[in-house]
Amino acid sequence: MNLWLSQLKDPVPDGLKTPAELARFELSHALPDPAVTLAEDASLGDGYRIEALDDGSFHIAGGSTGLLYGAYRLILDRLCGETISDSVESAPKYALRMIDCWDNPDGTIERGYAGRSLFFADGKLSWDPERIRELGRLLASAGLNVLCINNVNVHFPAQLLLEDDLPSLALLAEAFRPFGIRLMLSIDFSQPMRSGIPTADPLDPVVREWWKKTASQVWAAIPDLAGFLVKADSEGRPGPFTYGRNHADGANMLAEAVRPYGGVIVWRCFVYNCRQDWRDTATDRPKAAWEHYAFLDGQFADNVILQVKHGPFDFQVREPLSPLLLGMKRTNLAMELQLTQEYTGHQIDLYTMIPMWKELYEELPADNIMSLAAVSNLGNDANYTGHPLAAVNLYTFGLLAWNPETDAETAVARWCRLTYGFSPAEEKKLTDLLLSSRGIYEKYTAPLGIGWMVNPHDHYGPNPSGYEYDLWGTYHKADRNAVGIDRTAGGTGYLSQYPETIRKKYEKPETCPDLYLLFYHRLPYTFRMKDGRTLVQRIYDDHFEGLEETRVLAEKLLSLPFPEPDAGVIRERMEKQLYNAREWCDIINTFFHRLSGVPDERGRKIYD
Amino acid sequence: MNLWLSQLKDPVPDGLKTPAELARFELSHALPDPAVTLAEDASLGDGYRIEALDDGSFHIAGGSTGLLYGAYRLILDRLCGETISDSVESAPKYALRMIDCWDNPDGTIERGYAGRSLFFADGKLSWDPERIRELGRLLASAGLNVLCINNVNVHFPAQLLLEDDLPSLALLAEAFRPFGIRLMLSIDFSQPMRSGIPTADPLDPVVREWWKKTASQVWAAIPDLAGFLVKADSEGRPGPFTYGRNHADGANMLAEAVRPYGGVIVWRCFVYNCRQDWRDTATDRPKAAWEHYAFLDGQFADNVILQVKHGPFDFQVREPLSPLLLGMKRTNLAMELQLTQEYTGHQIDLYTMIPMWKELYEELPADNIMSLAAVSNLGNDANYTGHPLAAVNLYTFGLLAWNPETDAETAVARWCRLTYGFSPAEEKKLTDLLLSSRGIYEKYTAPLGIGWMVNPHDHYGPNPSGYEYDLWGTYHKADRNAVGIDRTAGGTGYLSQYPETIRKKYEKPETCPDLYLLFYHRLPYTFRMKDGRTLVQRIYDDHFEGLEETRVLAEKLLSLPFPEPDAGVIRERMEKQLYNAREWCDIINTFFHRLSGVPDERGRKIYD
Repeated sequence: MNLWLSQLKDPVPDGLKTPAELARFELSHALPDPAVTLAEDASLGDGYRIEALDDGSFHIAGGSTGLLYGAYRLILDRLCGETISDSVESAPKYALRMIDCWDNPDGTIERGYAGRSLFFADGKLSWDPERIRELGRLLASAGLNVLCINNVNVHFPAQLLLEDDLPSLALLAEAFRPFGIRLMLSIDFSQPMRSGIPTADPLDPVVREWWKKTASQVWAAIPDLAGFLVKADSEGRPGPFTYGRNHADGANMLAEAVRPYGGVIVWRCFVYNCRQDWRDTATDRPKAAWEHYAFLDGQFADNVILQVKHGPFDFQVREPLSPLLLGMKRTNLAMELQLTQEYTGHQIDLYTMIPMWKELYEELPADNIMSLAAVSNLGNDANYTGHPLAAVNLYTFGLLAWNPETDAETAVARWCRLTYGFSPAEEKKLTDLLLSSRGIYEKYTAPLGIGWMVNPHDHYGPNPSGYEYDLWGTYHKADRNAVGIDRTAGGTGYLSQYPETIRKKYEKPETCPDLYLLFYHRLPYTFRMKDGRTLVQRIYDDHFEGLEETRVLAEKLLSLPFPEPDAGVIRERMEKQLYNAREWCDIINTFFHRLSGVPDERGRKIYD
Repeated sequence: MNLWLSQLKDPVPDGLKTPAELARFELSHALPDPAVTLAEDASLGDGYRIEALDDGSFHIAGGSTGLLYGAYRLILDRLCGETISDSVESAPKYALRMIDCWDNPDGTIERGYAGRSLFFADGKLSWDPERIRELGRLLASAGLNVLCINNVNVHFPAQLLLEDDLPSLALLAEAFRPFGIRLMLSIDFSQPMRSGIPTADPLDPVVREWWKKTASQVWAAIPDLAGFLVKADSEGRPGPFTYGRNHADGANMLAEAVRPYGGVIVWRCFVYNCRQDWRDTATDRPKAAWEHYAFLDGQFADNVILQVKHGPFDFQVREPLSPLLLGMKRTNLAMELQLTQEYTGHQIDLYTMIPMWKELYEELPADNIMSLAAVSNLGNDANYTGHPLAAVNLYTFGLLAWNPETDAETAVARWCRLTYGFSPAEEKKLTDLLLSSRGIYEKYTAPLGIGWMVNPHDHYGPNPSGYEYDLWGTYHKADRNAVGIDRTAGGTGYLSQYPETIRKKYEKPETCPDLYLLFYHRLPYTFRMKDGRTLVQRIYDDHFEGLEETRVLAEKLLSLPFPEPDAGVIRERMEKQLYNAREWCDIINTFFHRLSGVPDERGRKIYD
């Protein structure tokens, strides 16, 4: 299979200790000529400065990791046929560029579509050193530097990572160290109770002492551990609420324990009522994160980072930017993206994410957050991401986490060139197809920001009412006249959580951007869109177009000269995507046709 | 927990060999006085004749099993406070009174709600001899005589029952022998291929020889094995279709193999397209059984029994009688009922079945079939059936299989008296509650014969569109105007599979019995029912009434003096049923309200 570093033929050897050592190895093998000199300057950290010298050689200055990133910059530029003519300086926008794996000790991966865990098997840590080195190289070359290896839903025996399995964990941390990658761990907030303490109350002195002692043991074993990731009071996980404490109490208690070692607490803001009664219209799930966290702004310790999903729901194809990311100015924030295609096609359907991420930054000032995290799409499939083309999401996430101003087309084209080395015309074609894939997927799935019309549990394939009477707070309430939830001030009030400029952008259905229309508004099927079409006609049109565009996408994609085995995998998944797109198109259209009774203006077939 | 034989305090000892021996044991312990004499008369078989002699003693004549059934008759009558004053003769209507267990070798039970398997654990046969004797006694006292112990979906390693596990199976057969219970086995039609034969073609001489040899080995080990049960070409199971043969070819081949030993082949008629495209309106699943089997009438060997589910779908709360049961006059037929509450409440919701079975017999001449079978509701829960009151279905099924003219109220009252020994008023109350339970469940679940509005996969709880776009052929196609499938001659033509009297009964919506209305007809919500209500108002009314009746049922039921632990289990399940009934009521009403826009005439709350 092809990876973006497949052209590096010499595997990273065992035994390297530091990123600087790895930088030297990589340069000597991948770029033996011209000469490159390295000068370590710890003050530069992850940053680097590359100078093209008059004799044709290069000089890189940087911290140990900076040297490595500089080396990859030179090597990848060279592989792309680019060169640095004068000098270039670069440093990452965000110090923590994180991948969150949802791997379980039994080797399964929650919402994973690329095989089994690379880190766990049979209840224990277990890895193939060669694959870890290959993975480390991939991640480092994309500029990523933190890897949380275990699921935020900490199922037993994942707790043992802080206990009996600590020596093994230290070995894994060591394996990643030359790549500049620091491990992070998802922890169980109630873990003190495993030691016989009758409570996990964050204000209880015994609990606080337990975490301090545990942190001292963990950091003694892994001095560069990045920190702990915590999902608390969410979807059944334990948390401070059990003890009548708030989330600042919980996070700050942990922050105090890890502070002596430079550790951070990454605290996920994914708290909502997952046992909502569908009859309850007073509760609107998108409001939950703000309600739980906004009032705590300024109360978190400086080594706490709140990790906020990019949207107020849960990684749907189209969600507005989470209001928390705009509203908590006195709090360290990380934005959480999702590489694994939970709701976006399971690495079967093509779905390139960077256009979506770029849209988020249209409303998010890059300085509002201090870190970027993404849920992993990795697994032990030979190509790591299941679908060979899903690797573009991993790579471009890295570029974006280094520099949010990264241009989407440039980033995708660079991945294409590194991975397949196509002709310029082919490369352009593949780049365009990848960039178009999200829009196509969006067209044939749930319409206009409504989300959630997927099969419950597995989240692949259409089920227009699959969540309609369920406990998850994700309702569209489509009836014979109208569809959607009014989230304006006159409705649930969700929109009021935003600054005024954003409120104004979305508050009127007449001016609300189309693709967010049914996220914010409840509208009759006869509502006139800006272009004069009715809402229901727009839904029909989008779905017929989405299906047709998938057919064209398939034809174009399969005409490209992918090598085997990639070609076979791409073909097989594309066939499944075509089936899926047809199901989505017909089912969504039938669903709205049955409800509205409105025929398609253009007389296309809608099934009874 | 209380069972209908709990009053028999002395457990059946190990070591009894024949039903006649067991009869003597039971009488000597349960009925030491008056004296009972037994005279074995093999010509009477399962039948018995009891004479009350002048000296107050009784005399029973019967075959070995007949003596046992006669003994239980006397004992249970006595426990009920009844007596035989003169003489009574009884013989079963059906020679095979079968329980089909869907137990898997790993100990799970497909669609089981009463714990794990009584017969399997860890991939092998495994049982507790004392529980087998208690179970044998229960089944024999209800007149049941054939027990198929393994799932019709024969998942590996269930095939080993015909191979390595045969000696163990012989021991289980021996354990059931004193109870007059013969084992039956579900087999894998493709099993010859496990022996290296490249085909399972029923007309292939090598295959035929393999089955003959296998049958000779099996019956050598278990001379009284009742036969084989086969699910072929159904939901992914192998069958004759793979080889271009029909089901008579398949069944007759097996019948020839088991004939020398008096074995029968019970061949399930459950063939349909389980990969149907929801867009395909030409296919109507209820038609499938007739289309696959009716033309084969007269072609099956005389030791083949076609086992036909009572309705044309799959054990829904309300289905018409399967047309196959009326149309195959020259074929041995068994009607298959389902004790396990797959679609009828999971042994959480109260659902007493005999009223439904009696309704089936209103259209089914008892002589049309020669056997009655029921899918087991048994498991290793202490009370065998999960819900203590679900045992009434097992017991009354036995009575009905012995005598289809058994009166529902008498049968249920007898079970109540034996199980709880309540006062006459309490017994009447419990009997009435049980007899009403099916009607209540029907009212709050899918309306008027429409079926299938359950959660996919687990089949508990409401999901009005759960199967609407799926592959199972079970659609209602509700839209803003109408609901249901027209199955008359003008529609899918399903109704044409029936004799004229039945066709006439159902063909016009104006005269079709209400409870079958949406099984046979597609009707607008404004359709006027016979009582003048609109269809949608009837749906609302039924659901509000069903919920209210559940509340009353709960109140009355929980006022009865059940002993512990039954009382606790009944209370806990009743609470779950109340929750379930409310979900059903509100979700179904909301679903139809959203579609129709018609308000409730009586202004009750229907959620948006």
